[in-house]
Amino acid sequence: MEQILTSLQQRIRDNRNADPKLSYVAKLHKRGIKKIAQKIGEEGVELAIACVSEGKKEVIGEAADLVFHLMVALDYHGLHIKNVIEELGKREGTSGIAEKASRVE
Amino acid sequence: MEQILTSLQQRIRDNRNADPKLSYVAKLHKRGIKKIAQKIGEEGVELAIACVSEGKKEVIGEAADLVFHLMVALDYHGLHIKNVIEELGKREGTSGIAEKASRVE
Amino acid sequence: MEQILTSLQQRIRDNRNADPKLSYVAKLHKRGIKKIAQKIGEEGVELAIACVSEGKKEVIGEAADLVFHLMVALDYHGLHIKNVIEELGKREGTSGIAEKASRVE
Amino acid sequence: MEQILTSLQQRIRDNRNADPKLSYVAKLHKRGIKKIAQKIGEEGVELAIACVSEGKKEVIGEAADLVFHLMVALDYHGLHIKNVIEELGKREGTSGIAEKASRVE
Repeated sequence: MEQILTSLQQRIRDNRNADPKLSYVAKLHKRGIKKIAQKIGEEGVELAIACVSEGKKEVIGEAADLVFHLMVALDYHGLHIKNVIEELGKREGTSGIAEKASRVE
Repeated sequence: MEQILTSLQQRIRDNRNADPKLSYVAKLHKRGIKKIAQKIGEEGVELAIACVSEGKKEVIGEAADLVFHLMVALDYHGLHIKNVIEELGKREGTSGIAEKASRVE
Repeated sequence: MEQILTSLQQRIRDNRNADPKLSYVAKLHKRGIKKIAQKIGEEGVELAIACVSEGKKEVIGEAADLVFHLMVALDYHGLHIKNVIEELGKREGTSGIAEKASRVE
Repeated sequence: MEQILTSLQQRIRDNRNADPKLSYVAKLHKRGIKKIAQKIGEEGVELAIACVSEGKKEVIGEAADLVFHLMVALDYHGLHIKNVIEELGKREGTSGIAEKASRVE
């Protein structure tokens, strides 16, 4: 898993300034953070709908769309998917309820 | 990264049938897939808002919330985060635009 | 306001079975409720983003997009915007907090 | 319909500065536009899920939740639901496809 995520995060970084006609990542970056944020919201909604009304294949596809756009947003902010996974790692050790309670609902 | 994701996905699986009063995962499962789907949509929106109006720390926090609930949804469907990452791996190799074009917008 | 809403809801109804190439409403209907639901989620996200990062004009524009797609969804379910407004009317009379408490969070 | 919307929009305005313990509207305002924006996104997702998986009663309930929070957001921005309906009125007259084409997708 690690290699795929690292390699994809690197490609997103490399493609930031590519030709928007050739790179979807460059196209998103050119449209700016508002567009990238919209895409995250949209993909979240599509995954939510797939979760209640579709099968495993669609759930995986929508989840992959969501993680991809998440990684574009992270890159926009100078972040890396490993920062998010490390945050999840930090939270582990606290039990589920305790962890949840520590966040603002 | 891999160890954190694998360990967290396992804990989610282990906690499915725990006491909902003690485990947030069990509480979500008890409320069902509609509630889990809602949470994904909500966390997607919160991340989108953080992306346009907050700093790195908040973006990481919201992204971690989103990935966590994504993993709960995957588990609900008998899936694992590695299925999603493998799907991302399959898509790599195609360029960004080509890959995007192959998906229904 | 009433005339605009009634007239728009009627046009949406009339255009359900129009040529999808000529009518956006017909195009949405042809793609089905999943697509219409996605659009509601998307427009909700776009409005949320506009609320935190844009001015009045954009907020009005996004809100109009959202209400329009809401009306398409209502029509799909054989409903009318007046059903929603009547529901809001029923809720009035209860105070804000009481009203909220009566709903599942 | 008009009277209900006007009366509700007025109550929202009146309750802005009420005691947050007694008024849900005041509570939302105190938490700020980010929270109000989140609620719009959340209610959009809940309505989307209801549209694909629930019946008329739930769709009406979720739609009412969404419109209510939309009206809170409008008030926050010094706007009124009539501004949104007038915008919908302006768009009418253009056909569905033409109207859609005139917006950024």
